[in-house]
Amino acid sequence: MPRYRLTLEFDGSAFVGWQRQANGLSVQQAIEEAGAHLNGGVLPASAAAGRTDAGVHAAARPAQLDLDRAHAPDRVRDALNFYTRPLPLAVLDASLAPEDWHARFSCTGRGYEYVILNRRAPAALALGRVWHIPVPLDAAAMHAAAQRLVGQHDFSSFRAAECQAKSPLKTLDELLVARDGERIVITARARSFLHHQVRNMVGTLAQVGRGRWGAGDVAAILEARDRRQAGETAPAEGLTFKFAKYSKG
Amino acid sequence: MPRYRLTLEFDGSAFVGWQRQANGLSVQQAIEEAGAHLNGGVLPASAAAGRTDAGVHAAARPAQLDLDRAHAPDRVRDALNFYTRPLPLAVLDASLAPEDWHARFSCTGRGYEYVILNRRAPAALALGRVWHIPVPLDAAAMHAAAQRLVGQHDFSSFRAAECQAKSPLKTLDELLVARDGERIVITARARSFLHHQVRNMVGTLAQVGRGRWGAGDVAAILEARDRRQAGETAPAEGLTFKFAKYSKG
Repeated sequence: MPRYRLTLEFDGSAFVGWQRQANGLSVQQAIEEAGAHLNGGVLPASAAAGRTDAGVHAAARPAQLDLDRAHAPDRVRDALNFYTRPLPLAVLDASLAPEDWHARFSCTGRGYEYVILNRRAPAALALGRVWHIPVPLDAAAMHAAAQRLVGQHDFSSFRAAECQAKSPLKTLDELLVARDGERIVITARARSFLHHQVRNMVGTLAQVGRGRWGAGDVAAILEARDRRQAGETAPAEGLTFKFAKYSKG
Repeated sequence: MPRYRLTLEFDGSAFVGWQRQANGLSVQQAIEEAGAHLNGGVLPASAAAGRTDAGVHAAARPAQLDLDRAHAPDRVRDALNFYTRPLPLAVLDASLAPEDWHARFSCTGRGYEYVILNRRAPAALALGRVWHIPVPLDAAAMHAAAQRLVGQHDFSSFRAAECQAKSPLKTLDELLVARDGERIVITARARSFLHHQVRNMVGTLAQVGRGRWGAGDVAAILEARDRRQAGETAPAEGLTFKFAKYSKG
C-alpha cells in the first residue's frame, strides 16, 4: 500500500483543526474525502505531524495518505487540489514516502510562527491571521524574557489541561520575538510541543510586552509548573505551522 | 465644517468597492454610517482618491469625511473603527485636513500592487488576494514588455468601456514586474489611471508571461488604441491600492 507524503497549506479559520471531529469539517476529513476519488471510493487513512488546534493556519504542514494503489505523485497532488475546491486548502507537494516514514512519528522538528498586530487600528487585511493588541508592546523585552524558556524544561505552566503528552518535559530549541513594523513576529522551534504550549507562551510574553511582567517573572512562572501562574492562551488565529523536519525523507 | 483625512485599509472581498451602490455594501456607506455616530445621527459626506472596483483591496487608501463639528482626530479614528466592526475595514489614521484639501482632486499620485500566485497548487493562505496562474510565467519577459507601456500614451487599449475619464491620455510613471518565489508582484504608479487600466495591463502581461506575446506585441497593442487587441481583465482580487500622494497635506 503506497504512502504519499503531502505538504499542506491551509487557512485554519475554515477548519476545526487537523483531526476529525463531530462538530465540523477537519483538514483530515477534507483530505480523506478527496483521496477517496483516487481510492475506488474508499476513504484512505491519513495522519499529520500533529493535531493542530481549530483555527491554526499552516504554511507547509506534512501529512501522509495511504492509497490502495500507486499513482503518479503529481496526479495525487492535482486530484486532491481539484476535489478540495473551493476550500482554502492546498496540497503544495505530493511524493512517495520512504519506507517506514510516518508523518508524525518520524518528525524530528516543528516550527511555528505567531503574529501579533500591534497598532491602534484593528486588523483588516490581516483579519483572522493575527492577534490584535492595540497597546504598544515592548518587543525587545519580550525577546529577552523568551530566552528564559529556551532549553529543556518541565513546561507544565504552559500546558493545556487536555494535553495528552506522557511527560511535560520538552526541549525548546528557539523562541525569537522580533518587531517588523506594526507586526510582532514570534517564532518557536522544538522537536515537539505540548498542547497549547506556543499559544500559552505567547500569552505570557504579551504580558511582558505590556510591562506587567519581566524576564524574572517568566522564569518563576516556568519554575512553578502551574498553568494558573502563566498568561492567557493567545488566540489560535495568530498561529501558523511553518515547517516540519524529518530525519529520513 | 471640519474635514478629516482618513487612511483606510480594507479587504475588498467584503465590499462592492468604494462608491455607494444599490447592490451591496460599499466602503463609503460603511464609513459614512459609522461617521453618523459622530455627526448627531446625520450621514456625513465623504470622498476617496478614486472609485476602487468591487473586490479590490486597500493597504492605505486616503478618504475624506466632513463632520459638522470638530473632534480630536484620534477620537474620530477610534470611533470609526468601533462602529465599523466586525467588517474587514480599518481606519489607520485620521487627521484634520489642510484647507482646500480634497481626497480625490488634490491627489497627485497613486500606487497599486497586483499579485499573481504562480504555482501548480491553488491559493490557500492567499485565497482572495491573488490571481492564481498554474502554468509557469516568465517574469523577466513580463517586466521587459511592461517597459513599453511606461510614459505618456493613449491607453484606449487598456480602458474599460464604462470609463468616465475625459481623455484616454495618461502618464504611466512606473510598471515593475518582479518574481518573489511563487509570487509575481506587479507595481504600477501614475498620477491617475483609467478604469480597469491596471487590471487590463496585468491581463496583457500575463499573456507575455505565458510566452504568447512579446514586448513588440504589447507595443503594437498600445498603438492600436483598441481594447479588443489587449488581454483579459485580470481578476479584482489580486489588486491592492497601496498609496496616494498629495502635493499639499
